[in-house]
Amino acid sequence: MGEFELIRRYFLPLAGRQKSPALILGPGDDCAIQRIPAGRDLVFSVDAFVEGVHFPRNYRPDYLGWRALAAAASDLAAMGADPECFTLALTLPALDEQWLEDFSKGLRSASEAFGLELAGGDTTSGPLTLSLQVHGTVEQGCGIRRSGARPGDLIAVSGTLGNAGAALDYLSEPTPSADMLAVLEHYHRPRPRLDLGGRIRQYASAGIDISDGLLADLGHILDASGVGARIESAKLPLSPELVRLKGEKALNYALRSGDDYELCLCFPRENWDRAPASLTSQLAVIGSVEAESGLYLDGIDCSSEALPAGFDHFRSES
Amino acid sequence: MGEFELIRRYFLPLAGRQKSPALILGPGDDCAIQRIPAGRDLVFSVDAFVEGVHFPRNYRPDYLGWRALAAAASDLAAMGADPECFTLALTLPALDEQWLEDFSKGLRSASEAFGLELAGGDTTSGPLTLSLQVHGTVEQGCGIRRSGARPGDLIAVSGTLGNAGAALDYLSEPTPSADMLAVLEHYHRPRPRLDLGGRIRQYASAGIDISDGLLADLGHILDASGVGARIESAKLPLSPELVRLKGEKALNYALRSGDDYELCLCFPRENWDRAPASLTSQLAVIGSVEAESGLYLDGIDCSSEALPAGFDHFRSES
Repeated sequence: MGEFELIRRYFLPLAGRQKSPALILGPGDDCAIQRIPAGRDLVFSVDAFVEGVHFPRNYRPDYLGWRALAAAASDLAAMGADPECFTLALTLPALDEQWLEDFSKGLRSASEAFGLELAGGDTTSGPLTLSLQVHGTVEQGCGIRRSGARPGDLIAVSGTLGNAGAALDYLSEPTPSADMLAVLEHYHRPRPRLDLGGRIRQYASAGIDISDGLLADLGHILDASGVGARIESAKLPLSPELVRLKGEKALNYALRSGDDYELCLCFPRENWDRAPASLTSQLAVIGSVEAESGLYLDGIDCSSEALPAGFDHFRSES
Repeated sequence: MGEFELIRRYFLPLAGRQKSPALILGPGDDCAIQRIPAGRDLVFSVDAFVEGVHFPRNYRPDYLGWRALAAAASDLAAMGADPECFTLALTLPALDEQWLEDFSKGLRSASEAFGLELAGGDTTSGPLTLSLQVHGTVEQGCGIRRSGARPGDLIAVSGTLGNAGAALDYLSEPTPSADMLAVLEHYHRPRPRLDLGGRIRQYASAGIDISDGLLADLGHILDASGVGARIESAKLPLSPELVRLKGEKALNYALRSGDDYELCLCFPRENWDRAPASLTSQLAVIGSVEAESGLYLDGIDCSSEALPAGFDHFRSES
């Protein structure tokens, strides 16, 4: 099976499924062509996924297909962009048809779930590596940036935090408990907050997706906005499964572990107050933006500059 | 040096250099934002480059930076698109500062030469692999596709063919001759035909860039257009250096070796006749499109279906 047959069999079925009017020309030519509606801008992000770095060796290929596209799509959610299409550069050590069948199945599920049509790609031999670029659109001037947070803004996060990080401890568990299965689902099948991001866009002043952990990612907002923040540990949303599995350490996972793909958003108070309850009910307010720099958790500075001095007790021991 | 410092030091200097008004938001946020001018479409293509597959191990990093962006940009040239920006997903085995310095220098030269501004990227650890996505624009409905060739069209190619393929034989040559240096320059520093592609767009019926060899790439046009072609070996443009180095085998390199990044274009005769001489003088007519399927060279069918039966004498022996 050559590269062309491989693409025809496993990847072309992902193209043209959503019949996106925006994709003027899909895979198969030198380039793809996308039409951006009048008054909107193209929003795009690329993410690389390397075996042994971003996912375990011999990771289930259907999970890999879903997770990789979910992680990439999460960047669109963080900008409040409406998803359109994606490209895939795939480097494969061998032409394993069962692997390709399973991988493309997971990728297709995610493609349909997230409304992202395959626009083009490149398939080559080499170490198992994926590079995914996602395309979305926003009204001109309306993408949520990291740099818009202002003192007094509320800070809120979606979902519950720390589940995917805790799941890393159970990837090889032969007989996982129900609680372990629940956190493993967060790791294997993350659901980027595309709908929430797109609808909350007009109310948020700044935002980011939580891929590297709350402290790190909120830190990026603070750096880009030139502000500080105070957050309260008691307000961090934790799943009951995480609390049962990790006890006192649950908070640590929620603060420091990545791969959750939830959103961290800032809101001027008046915007928060007028946002529909159907949106704010999906978010937990965890603190507020401050003029003074530093990221204070329960009064302790845990910004990256303040580490490693006084914050060892929050470090993951896993 | 962490990922952020690495990006700041080596890659941010490639962003914002052209001061493209199209790039509303460059590297550093969850996504980049590009504005597509009214009446134009986004044109994009992704290419992966793997060490040991697409370039030799321990390849000079400045050459790598240039070559990778040139190869990716060549797909824009083939569509007749005007270049705008690019993203880079880079997987590195080690944080080698000298390597990064040299690589980014080569990439920056190419970025400036081709008018492609860095819009975003991802840098991770892993086997040396690059994935580059280039963005351009065309007037709506105007990209050159592979599928537009019609019987009677002229077939023309830019530049001279086979030089980069011949260069592979001299990559390790300790004291290369002037002729070897000339073909090596084609391999290390290919120049995608962006200007020609953009200006010839309105006259061409179909086109592709020659990355896999003339026979393979012209074959893609014929397949996509549902036509055949007759070409003449005597009309293939060969460099004097290639002829001196390879003698009778020069033709073989011109037909079968890749990495030239020249254009192969089809033209309705009336379009060819009214195209400016400043453009047609950059092209050599090598044959014509036929209604009957098959790719005939000097009367011998050398389409992929016809191989390997009667065409062994055209196979590269290198």
